[in-house]
Amino acid sequence: MITSTEIRLKSRPVGVPTAANFDVATVDVPAPGAGEVLVRNRYMSVDPYMRGRMYDRPSYVPPFQIGEALQGHAVGEIVESHAEGFAPGDLVSSMFGWREAFTVAPANLAAMPDLFGKLPHVPGINPSAFIGVLGMPGLTAYVGLLEIGQPKAGDTVFVSGGAGAVGSVVAQIAKIKGCTVVASAGSAEKCDWLRSVGVDHAINYKDGNLLAQVQAAAPKGIDVYFDNVGGEHLEVAIEVARQGARLAECGMISQYNDTAPAPGPRNIIMVVGKSLKIQGFIVSNFGHLRAQFVADMAGWIAEGRIRWEETVMDGIAQAPAAFAGLFDGTNTGKMVVKL
Amino acid sequence: MITSTEIRLKSRPVGVPTAANFDVATVDVPAPGAGEVLVRNRYMSVDPYMRGRMYDRPSYVPPFQIGEALQGHAVGEIVESHAEGFAPGDLVSSMFGWREAFTVAPANLAAMPDLFGKLPHVPGINPSAFIGVLGMPGLTAYVGLLEIGQPKAGDTVFVSGGAGAVGSVVAQIAKIKGCTVVASAGSAEKCDWLRSVGVDHAINYKDGNLLAQVQAAAPKGIDVYFDNVGGEHLEVAIEVARQGARLAECGMISQYNDTAPAPGPRNIIMVVGKSLKIQGFIVSNFGHLRAQFVADMAGWIAEGRIRWEETVMDGIAQAPAAFAGLFDGTNTGKMVVKL
Repeated sequence: MITSTEIRLKSRPVGVPTAANFDVATVDVPAPGAGEVLVRNRYMSVDPYMRGRMYDRPSYVPPFQIGEALQGHAVGEIVESHAEGFAPGDLVSSMFGWREAFTVAPANLAAMPDLFGKLPHVPGINPSAFIGVLGMPGLTAYVGLLEIGQPKAGDTVFVSGGAGAVGSVVAQIAKIKGCTVVASAGSAEKCDWLRSVGVDHAINYKDGNLLAQVQAAAPKGIDVYFDNVGGEHLEVAIEVARQGARLAECGMISQYNDTAPAPGPRNIIMVVGKSLKIQGFIVSNFGHLRAQFVADMAGWIAEGRIRWEETVMDGIAQAPAAFAGLFDGTNTGKMVVKL
Repeated sequence: MITSTEIRLKSRPVGVPTAANFDVATVDVPAPGAGEVLVRNRYMSVDPYMRGRMYDRPSYVPPFQIGEALQGHAVGEIVESHAEGFAPGDLVSSMFGWREAFTVAPANLAAMPDLFGKLPHVPGINPSAFIGVLGMPGLTAYVGLLEIGQPKAGDTVFVSGGAGAVGSVVAQIAKIKGCTVVASAGSAEKCDWLRSVGVDHAINYKDGNLLAQVQAAAPKGIDVYFDNVGGEHLEVAIEVARQGARLAECGMISQYNDTAPAPGPRNIIMVVGKSLKIQGFIVSNFGHLRAQFVADMAGWIAEGRIRWEETVMDGIAQAPAAFAGLFDGTNTGKMVVKL
């Protein structure tokens, strides 16, 4: 009998999540029956959007339930298969993260078949990339920038959270598309990394006066803003937006732990006079672009045009700390937990 | 020699405009030379957006200058013509409002040739309609609702300022397109009028708790919001918006006289989870749709499917009061000044 250690939600966080909000439990994993596979996870993802699922409220995905194992993106390896088309050693992507192993019928790997299932073979790529640059964060960057932001060559693109799993891909795709890129991050080291991958202007928002820094970097304003942060960053983006700019709203991590509503952008009225488009999106609505994304991204990686960092924490017991680390800037690039 | 009384900006308003911000002056109108026409205005428009031009700041149109005649939409009649294709009695639309008469070469009637110039003949229509339902406010409603809001039959459309020049047209086009319409206005009389033109749910926002009123009117939420008001109305619209809703940002009259930035919508984070699109627009970017608009609108009027109210003030000297009246709800439908 195989056992699996899993992380459960013990209590709903108020403010920043802490270890006390999580339980660790070990369960038996059922042997796979006919048509089922046994999967051992090799990497699991922690993503900012998971914070939203810890509130008990209606949203585009149902809330996590107290006492149950959490869910999230993971890459695992099949260790036993009784399902046609799946063999031991195959890598699969699923939403069964936050646990070491599980048994499933492949059709049930996730509710979003476009995004999950057996993974393509990309030479020289560590499997963790499939929860990062080649996975949901990469696809999020790709569809948010290209479908919502619609950058043209010569445009100026501003991305917040530029050193994160999504932002770092946004910044580099924008460069591939011929844009000038302004990216913000929370440390000098992250800014150095951004410059090393070709970002034109890297801004450490902790240096203060974000508006002045962005104005200095983009004196003629910005055409596209890719928002991972919200709050002051969004207000600054509206302020420096040029006529007809597109603001792709991917996330607002600065507000996920708020216990009271934060003030909205005081300059929202500029949306009218500048003909701005502020548009939110959820990657699961763009699963039809996954194949095109994987083809483009694998090509860019092979050409050395996309680079990425991972911050790796080791062992399932580290998952709560990895998740909490998203909110204090622990990670450069994709935060992953190695199982 | 013909004289013209005109209204000039005397000082930039702080807060709500008053008579003290305006000067009245009478000037001689030059006789038309070769290629020119002499126009006597019959109706001039006052529109909320003019408040923005009274601030000294960069925008999509230049600010009004102290000591100079104001500008704005007007319908006039040619009284003398030395220009080919223009004859006495022809009606022309121009941006030379806030004055009784002027001389011009027709090519210079305005900087936006798609929107201005010789007016089409629409049977049974008073010329004032060309600064209202058949003019810029009507086109604003048409492009904002149809191009930005993209309503489908069966959608629920919420429009603020529903009894105004733009909102009243939005509400009726939405009904023509098969939508359920919720409209807000500031008096019981305006709400009665809205119901009389087929609006499903008319809300008097002065009755309090706007959110509860809109939720009661649209328990399943809204698919399109057409914003003329901003502030609390926008926050409520975001709150009740359904997945993928479109928010057409036409104006935010509640904020035009603010002397300090108003707080933005505290629920702006919902843009992400609901995949909302909040998009501002300026009618002058949609001049290419004017011919299609006039054809559609003239047809709907002939079929009795579009009705409108005008609030008429008499004489150029009333123009400042008519303008100020926009901000305290004096008008039902289009506010016009008869000259």
